[in-house]
Parts: sequence; structure tokens; C-alpha cells
Amino acid sequence: MKFATYHDGSRDGQLWIVSRDLRSAVPATGIASSLLAAIEDWDSVAPRLAEVYERLNNHTEPFATRFEPERCLAPMPRSPQWLDASAFLNHGDLMDKAFNHPPKPDVKTIPLVYQGASDDFRGPLADVEFPDDAMMIDMEGEFGVILAPVAMGATADKALEQVRLIVQINDWSLRAVGPQEMRSGFGFIQAKPSTSFAPVAITPDELGPHWAEGRVALQLHVEINGRRVGDANGQEMHFSFGQIIAHCVRSRRLSAGTIVGSGTVSNVDRAAGSSCISEIRVIELLDQGQARTPFLTWGDRVRMEARMPDGSTPFGVIDQKVVQA
Amino acid sequence: MKFATYHDGSRDGQLWIVSRDLRSAVPATGIASSLLAAIEDWDSVAPRLAEVYERLNNHTEPFATRFEPERCLAPMPRSPQWLDASAFLNHGDLMDKAFNHPPKPDVKTIPLVYQGASDDFRGPLADVEFPDDAMMIDMEGEFGVILAPVAMGATADKALEQVRLIVQINDWSLRAVGPQEMRSGFGFIQAKPSTSFAPVAITPDELGPHWAEGRVALQLHVEINGRRVGDANGQEMHFSFGQIIAHCVRSRRLSAGTIVGSGTVSNVDRAAGSSCISEIRVIELLDQGQARTPFLTWGDRVRMEARMPDGSTPFGVIDQKVVQA
Repeated sequence: MKFATYHDGSRDGQLWIVSRDLRSAVPATGIASSLLAAIEDWDSVAPRLAEVYERLNNHTEPFATRFEPERCLAPMPRSPQWLDASAFLNHGDLMDKAFNHPPKPDVKTIPLVYQGASDDFRGPLADVEFPDDAMMIDMEGEFGVILAPVAMGATADKALEQVRLIVQINDWSLRAVGPQEMRSGFGFIQAKPSTSFAPVAITPDELGPHWAEGRVALQLHVEINGRRVGDANGQEMHFSFGQIIAHCVRSRRLSAGTIVGSGTVSNVDRAAGSSCISEIRVIELLDQGQARTPFLTWGDRVRMEARMPDGSTPFGVIDQKVVQA
Repeated sequence: MKFATYHDGSRDGQLWIVSRDLRSAVPATGIASSLLAAIEDWDSVAPRLAEVYERLNNHTEPFATRFEPERCLAPMPRSPQWLDASAFLNHGDLMDKAFNHPPKPDVKTIPLVYQGASDDFRGPLADVEFPDDAMMIDMEGEFGVILAPVAMGATADKALEQVRLIVQINDWSLRAVGPQEMRSGFGFIQAKPSTSFAPVAITPDELGPHWAEGRVALQLHVEINGRRVGDANGQEMHFSFGQIIAHCVRSRRLSAGTIVGSGTVSNVDRAAGSSCISEIRVIELLDQGQARTPFLTWGDRVRMEARMPDGSTPFGVIDQKVVQA
């Protein structure tokens, strides 16, 4: 199944069911008011949502209308928790080089995860406001999962069973403040502004074999101002989503609707390009002696879309302009 | 005004208005279903809540019943954001000594704040579950504020105007994992399990002169298993709540209902005692050559209550037992 959330003036927005080909949609009226409400009562509402989804795909849903991404908020505009990992070791390696951090000794055994703000996510086409472009505005293309409740102490296998939906994310990052916040040991506050989401959240079965071993095995196509900068594949994630979630629930439980991110999708193969500017810059520095690609400034556009082998975009497209607050 | 939230089976609980002396209470039925709903629509609902509060205090509210803390969840059982500072420099100094961290050069100019989980707060008398007492279970007695929306870039003065309620907090901490998570630079996940709250959230005017310069100038009385360990005063906070909030909104906005914590209340005067065990232990180590006070284990009880000069407890009492998950 596929879902989007249209802006209706409320904090959680209005849940819509979207056809597999993202051409048509219908509100989930009478089944669930919001995506969070649906996830909180998933076992009861999923079969009813599935009936509508089937009608949409069969072109027999009488109330279907054209799907309008321009009306979309993030699929879940606010969520109980947002836990974002850094599970692609190649990204971590490059970032350590960029910021002159010593390599972390336990990087292959303990997932790196930060707690982010979950109250104010951004929709796929909304302008994104920042206070100052001297803060080194960067993007981070990622995949994420939306969870049913996870109990404290759940294993990676049990945790993975709680994945209900998969999403595509741009985790905006301000690189000028990140290193100071990391040195503090307390993690990111100013360095991680509101996070953006592609319009459509999908159930894992929609990806077929491309949802495998708790990873999204799709290329994430990334463009800055129309120039392709990356097509890294999510398959290369060192920790699976199950392992990341198990790490997070060692001493807490996760509420329904918790979103867990993969961290920047990053591949060892340089031909895959990058899903963030800091990686591009450190590769330029290593290969050419100088970072040439600038961080983002007012008016720049970032486009991100995961692609199936047939070229279709299962989550739709993030296409946003950077503007001054 | 004073508010509590009774358990009614819902995620946000049922909002009750509590009398100034914490003796009687009445549900806010027909005004606001939950404390979050009230904060999101504060200007419109506050006058109606105030009318009921006045009747409660005058003993003219016909539906008043005895206030029952044993029915209380946290005043806001889940919140859009939970941002916890470490604003008492004496606490930071002692913790740096405890964990052999070098002193932070910008400790007096940049507030230390971590993003915590806000989806699963604990009520004042609920047992608190941990997976393993080898994780060095500790408490952190704090004050906090609940906010109306705060715009990106707000100054400390503007931010302080958005404080709607004051709360009393125990920020449970697992010291065995804290240092590793600080070294990672990504902040706390396992080291900060669900946070507990005293039953009653109060408007700033309830504290009279003890809400001053964006600080709670009250002693926080702390007991472990009936033994007094601290009475530190909130007045010694280095950064005001306004300054902490201004730090947090440099690159983001805060939704209505965001909770901001002070960090462990801690005074330079050793006679004030401590609001966490790690401080007690490092003082023992410095003064006596050996830490003697153990971290918490199964069956231990922690009691915390802020006290007005007349001995009354404006937020009620946190009194919880540590149990194995």
C-alpha cells in the first residue's frame, strides 16, 4: 500500500491512499484520520485500507482523484520519535576525514544514532528555511522506516517485524555547527533543522526483492540545481534497520509511529556519487587537493528520488528550494 | 493555575484542573481534552480554565473531587519535543571530573542541550523499568518548562514569553553507557530512558517571586530510600530558560507543547547536597578517596519534591520504585 498526507490545516494532516503508480488517490475518510492514527491501530485498519488500495489500482474506486504531490505534507508531519542512524560506513569514513575526527573504534559493532526533532517535518515540495547560509547548508539523502510499537529489549529480528512503512528522507544538516555539537557529546540541536520527506510512504511488500535483509536495495538519485550528484544504493547499509532498532530499544520502548532513518546513503564505489555535499567536498579534497562544490545557498534546489529498476519512483520526489528564514 | 493528567486509557490522558493546595481537582471536560490540546489552543482555553481554577480554590466548584496523584500520568504524557539542557555549571564540572572529561572551553557561553525521547514519559508514582542494573541506574532532579510555539531565531526575552507551564522532572540516566554515547558525538540514546514527571504542571505566576530571571528559585528536596541526599536550589542555573530556548531555535522552530529541561539542579555549596548519584559519588571520591554511594538497584525508591519556603510542594511529589523490565 501507499499513503500520503494532504495539508488540511490540522497538525497531523489528512490521510490519503495513493495508487501504486502514484497517478490517483482517495482520502481514507472513515478509516483513519491521519497516518499516525492508522499506525496506532494498524491491525484493525490495514485490511480496510487494503480494500480501497485495491480498488484504486483496479480503477474501480469511485472517489479517486488525480494524486497531487503539491498538496502533500510529510507522510507523517509529526511523529512520536525520530531516531536517525549513520549506518553507511563509507559515509562515516568520509565525514571523519572531512572533520579530522579520529576513526571510531566500535564503528562496525555499535550503530551510531542520534535523536532528532520529530514535531515539525517538511513536505516534499515545500521551500526549506534556514537562518544563515554561512551555517554551511547540506543535505543527507536517506531511507527510513515507520514502526508499530517495539518493546524494550527486542532483538533485531523481532524489531524488523515491526516495520510497517518505508519512507525517503532528506535530513538537512548545518555543517558549520555540527562539529562543535559533536565535541560537546550531547549530539545535534542546531546542526539538524527540520527534516524533509518524499510524499509517499509505502508498505515493504511494494519493493518486492528490493526490501531485503532489513535494507532498501534501491538507488537514490540526487540532483543539485538539475545536476546529478549521486545514485548510491541503499543495499550497502552496514547495520540493518532491525539492528539499528534493537540498539535503540535496549533501555526504552518505541511508540507506534516512531521513524528510524538509515543515515546518508553512501557507496564505496566512487562512480555512485554522493547523497550529501560534505562527501562530495571531501572526495574533491582527497582527489584534487581542493573542495570545489559549494554548500547550498538561497535559491538552490535539491531533488531526490529513489528509483526502481524500471525507472519508477516508489516514494515520489523531493524537490525543494533553499530560502532564507 | 495547576494541571494534572489522569490515566484514561488514551495516549494523551485526561486533563484535570487541580486546586492550588493540591487537595481537590476537576476534569477540564468541555474545555480541553488533554494538556497538549490546551497548550495548542492556550489563548482561547486559558480564560475558561482560569474560571474553573478560581471555583476550585474558592470551594465553589460543584464537581470537585479529592486530587488523586496515584491516578496521574506525567502532566503531558507525550510531547512534541523534549530538549534537556545541562545548565548548572557545578553539575557539569563534577560530571567532567567523574568521567575524566577535559573541561569544555565554551561551557559558559554555549548551552549544552540534548534531544530526548518525548513519546513515553512516566507518571510520578509509576514503577520505573530498566533492563539491567549493571547499567548504573541514576536519577537527575530537574525543573522544566512547557512552551507555546517559539519562532526560529527568537531572542532569549521573546523565548521566555512563550513559557506557559513549569514542571518538575527526574531525567533517569544510565551511567554505564553515557560516556560511550558522548564519545560518539551523536548524544544519548540508551543512556537516557523514559523521563519521569511530578504530577502537577503549574503556571509561572504560582511561584510568585520564586520564578525569577527565567529560573525556578526553589529547593529540590531529593531522597533515596528515605535518606535525604539533596536540597539544591534552582536559582543557581547559569543559563536561563530563555537563553536555553534561544539556543535551540537558532535553526528550528518549536511546536506548542515542547518541554525544555534545566539539567540536574546543582549548587556550588556542598551543604546543598546533590540531585544525582554521580555527583554524590564524585564528591565522595574527591573528599574521601572512594565513591561509597551505590547506583540504584531493584526495589530502590527515589523521592523528589520542590518545596516552597512554607514547606508546600507546588508540583506534588515524584516517588518511584526501580524495577527490572
